[in-house]
Amino acid sequence: MKVSVIGASGYIGGELLRLLLQHPNIEVIAATSNQYKGDYIFNVHPNLRGYTSLKFSGHDEILSSDVIFLCLPHGIAMSHIDSYSQKAKYIIDLSSDFRIKDINQYYKWYKKKHEQPTWLPKFVSGIPEFYRESIEKANYIAIPGCMANASLMALMPLEKENVLGNHRIIIDAKTGSSGSGATPNLSNLHAQRSGTVRLFKSMGHRHEAELKQEINKDVQLTVTSVELVRGIQISAHVTFNREIQEKELWSIYRKYYNDEPFIRIIKQKKGLYRYPEPKILSGTNYCDIGFSLDQETGKHAVIISAIDNLVKGGAGNAVQVLNIVAGWDETLGLNFIGLHPI
Amino acid sequence: MKVSVIGASGYIGGELLRLLLQHPNIEVIAATSNQYKGDYIFNVHPNLRGYTSLKFSGHDEILSSDVIFLCLPHGIAMSHIDSYSQKAKYIIDLSSDFRIKDINQYYKWYKKKHEQPTWLPKFVSGIPEFYRESIEKANYIAIPGCMANASLMALMPLEKENVLGNHRIIIDAKTGSSGSGATPNLSNLHAQRSGTVRLFKSMGHRHEAELKQEINKDVQLTVTSVELVRGIQISAHVTFNREIQEKELWSIYRKYYNDEPFIRIIKQKKGLYRYPEPKILSGTNYCDIGFSLDQETGKHAVIISAIDNLVKGGAGNAVQVLNIVAGWDETLGLNFIGLHPI
Amino acid sequence: MKVSVIGASGYIGGELLRLLLQHPNIEVIAATSNQYKGDYIFNVHPNLRGYTSLKFSGHDEILSSDVIFLCLPHGIAMSHIDSYSQKAKYIIDLSSDFRIKDINQYYKWYKKKHEQPTWLPKFVSGIPEFYRESIEKANYIAIPGCMANASLMALMPLEKENVLGNHRIIIDAKTGSSGSGATPNLSNLHAQRSGTVRLFKSMGHRHEAELKQEINKDVQLTVTSVELVRGIQISAHVTFNREIQEKELWSIYRKYYNDEPFIRIIKQKKGLYRYPEPKILSGTNYCDIGFSLDQETGKHAVIISAIDNLVKGGAGNAVQVLNIVAGWDETLGLNFIGLHPI
Amino acid sequence: MKVSVIGASGYIGGELLRLLLQHPNIEVIAATSNQYKGDYIFNVHPNLRGYTSLKFSGHDEILSSDVIFLCLPHGIAMSHIDSYSQKAKYIIDLSSDFRIKDINQYYKWYKKKHEQPTWLPKFVSGIPEFYRESIEKANYIAIPGCMANASLMALMPLEKENVLGNHRIIIDAKTGSSGSGATPNLSNLHAQRSGTVRLFKSMGHRHEAELKQEINKDVQLTVTSVELVRGIQISAHVTFNREIQEKELWSIYRKYYNDEPFIRIIKQKKGLYRYPEPKILSGTNYCDIGFSLDQETGKHAVIISAIDNLVKGGAGNAVQVLNIVAGWDETLGLNFIGLHPI
Repeated sequence: MKVSVIGASGYIGGELLRLLLQHPNIEVIAATSNQYKGDYIFNVHPNLRGYTSLKFSGHDEILSSDVIFLCLPHGIAMSHIDSYSQKAKYIIDLSSDFRIKDINQYYKWYKKKHEQPTWLPKFVSGIPEFYRESIEKANYIAIPGCMANASLMALMPLEKENVLGNHRIIIDAKTGSSGSGATPNLSNLHAQRSGTVRLFKSMGHRHEAELKQEINKDVQLTVTSVELVRGIQISAHVTFNREIQEKELWSIYRKYYNDEPFIRIIKQKKGLYRYPEPKILSGTNYCDIGFSLDQETGKHAVIISAIDNLVKGGAGNAVQVLNIVAGWDETLGLNFIGLHPI
Repeated sequence: MKVSVIGASGYIGGELLRLLLQHPNIEVIAATSNQYKGDYIFNVHPNLRGYTSLKFSGHDEILSSDVIFLCLPHGIAMSHIDSYSQKAKYIIDLSSDFRIKDINQYYKWYKKKHEQPTWLPKFVSGIPEFYRESIEKANYIAIPGCMANASLMALMPLEKENVLGNHRIIIDAKTGSSGSGATPNLSNLHAQRSGTVRLFKSMGHRHEAELKQEINKDVQLTVTSVELVRGIQISAHVTFNREIQEKELWSIYRKYYNDEPFIRIIKQKKGLYRYPEPKILSGTNYCDIGFSLDQETGKHAVIISAIDNLVKGGAGNAVQVLNIVAGWDETLGLNFIGLHPI
Repeated sequence: MKVSVIGASGYIGGELLRLLLQHPNIEVIAATSNQYKGDYIFNVHPNLRGYTSLKFSGHDEILSSDVIFLCLPHGIAMSHIDSYSQKAKYIIDLSSDFRIKDINQYYKWYKKKHEQPTWLPKFVSGIPEFYRESIEKANYIAIPGCMANASLMALMPLEKENVLGNHRIIIDAKTGSSGSGATPNLSNLHAQRSGTVRLFKSMGHRHEAELKQEINKDVQLTVTSVELVRGIQISAHVTFNREIQEKELWSIYRKYYNDEPFIRIIKQKKGLYRYPEPKILSGTNYCDIGFSLDQETGKHAVIISAIDNLVKGGAGNAVQVLNIVAGWDETLGLNFIGLHPI
Repeated sequence: MKVSVIGASGYIGGELLRLLLQHPNIEVIAATSNQYKGDYIFNVHPNLRGYTSLKFSGHDEILSSDVIFLCLPHGIAMSHIDSYSQKAKYIIDLSSDFRIKDINQYYKWYKKKHEQPTWLPKFVSGIPEFYRESIEKANYIAIPGCMANASLMALMPLEKENVLGNHRIIIDAKTGSSGSGATPNLSNLHAQRSGTVRLFKSMGHRHEAELKQEINKDVQLTVTSVELVRGIQISAHVTFNREIQEKELWSIYRKYYNDEPFIRIIKQKKGLYRYPEPKILSGTNYCDIGFSLDQETGKHAVIISAIDNLVKGGAGNAVQVLNIVAGWDETLGLNFIGLHPI
């Protein structure tokens, strides 16, 4: 398949190129960037040296492709979706433009009117674990936000099994610096960002909108930047509507995830890595999930999940989705083991 | 005043020496360590080179002092408290041995019988912000645990003003590696600990016991190790028993902390450092406190606090307590500004 | 091919397992560790969860294999080499036991008598770039030390072209913490090791012995620990025996490395990554090489090389060597691109 | 004394404010920044909250002061030196404008004509250890560059004792990110800068010019960025013009530094901190110096020095210079011990 990556100079775009360039069934025919137009891709993504001699083309030089991946800043993809759709049969959007189904919610969270409301129903939610059958038949897929994805993987089985209570669910997320993108500013300046534990969003993070679309509960997402480049870990503090036993929690998670190629349940009694940790996931498409039940009450639990925000939180998930769309083995090009120590 | 530090080769002990060696009214006459007995102190704490030519003595060579600081591992101080009390008028204990007033609670959390229950009522809680008057008259003071202290500073004003609801309070704490001490083991091996986001205690952390002694609510402390040497930041997710406005929250915190020399309320509308962050507190005795109210409901808030775990979370707090006991200016020897960037 | 890894619980052993478990032509039949005997491998190497259900066996339970990899501490392999050789046709040793050909040099650098001098000539030096033909025919191969390897890749072309002057060559190496192994001690305790710039060996590092075996010059290796888990970068400060032009340096390095699958010459005029850097090499088998000539004199240059110490500096190089020995494509199982950012 | 800081929003400016605000004999009357004019200083330097309620004024609002500190970008101070000199008796410049005495050298290294050659001889070199007597009588002082200062402290005793050989001296410097300033760009973006070992200047760094002004030898400065915010460590590889014994090296360094309040000779036989390391110097005005002699030849040595680039490499050195100029105790306001661990 011939694919183009629009907006390929950012971190999600670069990660997508890394995965696509090694994918056995894919040929990357174009990667665009207005800022770096004409430069070799490996000048911006130095890890790709030796793997491609392609140069960045401009956003307006889009070739006919089987698939177009959109890695543009939020709010751009929707303006050009008509023209993209004339160039490719499949469009996989990694921005937030087509994630929120309800235009009122879109307006509430993004403070602007959605420009293409008629396109919204054409987009399928790119969450293989819960929308695989829709994805198989879709032409247009919206990849969820990184923190939404990590949170949904933790909460969806509980939501679907109807065990969540009505108390506010507190999601305390810790995130690395690559999530804030490749554009330098004061908040990601090394001397300021290094070694920080910076609560930058106490509530009202936009990924909450995606959560609330799937989880019919009061959910609060609190996000803290920690010293890390790649990776997200979330601790979701939940209450149950009845007493739960550990055995039942195990069976709920096993029910939804036992056959999932990229979900591992991590809950060890000994060793250092008893719960999910992002650092051993760098470069992998895993979402590791664990939980700790309050055994005294049976009413409270902490659900932990961890991902590489650029892979399962973006580019890797997009490749997994393409594998499904194309009818290939879902793990094709995504079998990197992850490093330890790192 | 002549002071001795028992158990001076660990990180809390070393930090205490740093503060005491520059304190204008204090002379350090002994620092003990069985492991490093006979070695120069600056061989273990290299920052002290040029500030003392003292060598470590053994734990059994305790001199008569005005004050003895105990920085021993948990469970040791209680065994020798009688003999310490014969050597010094004032004892300031930085271990957990005399923090929990109720021996049943002590047994529950530490899984051993308290050896000196008659000593427990003699010890005053070393929290200047809430027990200053008792400390002034005390001879024996128990310094609180680092995470308990950071959490109490965040929650005590709400508890005292009786605005907390009955829902479980979730304290999501992030901590650096110095808190796990100076003894090498697999969990603090650099290659394993570096860059981690490791939830190591989902609930039931021993510092919960200290919290529950002061806060009459259901409190859960979840602790995650992050890449950091010094520092703790906690996000306390609270609910109120009635609707609260931001103005009221401000006045509650101002009421308790306006005159406190080491508490700053951090709640900025702009800039990077809008909430408390531990990294700019390294070496200082500050506890910075901030909060974010859910304006939609007025019922939920995130309270954020940050400290240097070795200073306000231990050695600095102990010096502040001594300043109170001795009737000196409470900030004596504790006026370091903190570094930025770092 | 059936392979066994002896000493598989350390970092080099774990990295080797990561590479072997995904190698298409290899089956790992045993991994030994006396310390973790009976434990699942993924309890020690958490990244391998889902890739193997093998448990560690003891060092004395060695099975007949096609290949045995030895990842033991220095000085152990030589004691058992006779028995290993009865279990496998090919032995690839990653320790230092068979690297030094001259037993007097071995004694000088390792302060012990070599126990198996008759085995020394049977071992071929595991440097594919310079000993490929010997490796093809070898049964026993000694993988070079990580810093020796990085340094040799930088210097060998200059040595072979006879352009190096007689002045002492200064190799200033910067290294990550994984190189010091998986056994906790004070020097690799996170709070002590974090953020350090620690010169731990000014001269006389044992890898100098390996350098001097190949480079007939006065060579000094100065090693500094920096904040990093994986990776080595070396700056080799060389003088030439005549004036050299940049064009000639290019042609020297191209001559030796143009056809090498794992050597890239990195010397960019613009961009951030103008010279080799280890961080984008994590997990890859590359040795990136660059140089900067003193254009004013033509007599001095800095040669820079970077590797992942666990891959090209050990486990990856060993797999590359096995690919050569087995007659397979030399890059089999070694085609990971490397991550950016990381 | 009343002092003004011109260019106070950068990292050197902020560090200077930290030191001046706690200096017992100094009152800061103005701090300028065109970018942040009108903002509270503590919004930019969050560590200063509670220590000053001053706001930034514009560069053109300079008040009459006893002392003006100039922390402007290179090339700006010289344009306004006449007007500054009318506002203050003493000017202490932390930029590079008045460091190089020879205008031809200035042109060579800075690629622009010096605008104020007549001012050059009025400026004294701000190196207390070697120019204390000139500083005592000076009105205008130029503080040396951070890497030049660290290197000069290592080399000057050897130069003055005439023991250096003619071989090129290789200074391999490792530096933190704060040295590149507070303006965000791609090279100091956290995700790019984090965990790097980036050789960014192989030779020809501008601080070489300052070195060559003092050391009459062939000197090469190679600079590598490592993961660190504050701190510089240099390894200077020197050769001697005759055989030297360790005892002699000791006596050379003792001769020059025994009475220096901010130089410590670090050369331990045991322990972790055997040579100078920048991390325990954060916030201090120390320059730690150590050395390792090649005992076999007596002809080669590695001289190691470490500083906090913002303190002894800039702001702290400037305060030390002011203490000398004013006739105060040279250590006034500079007695912070340094943190460990950190």
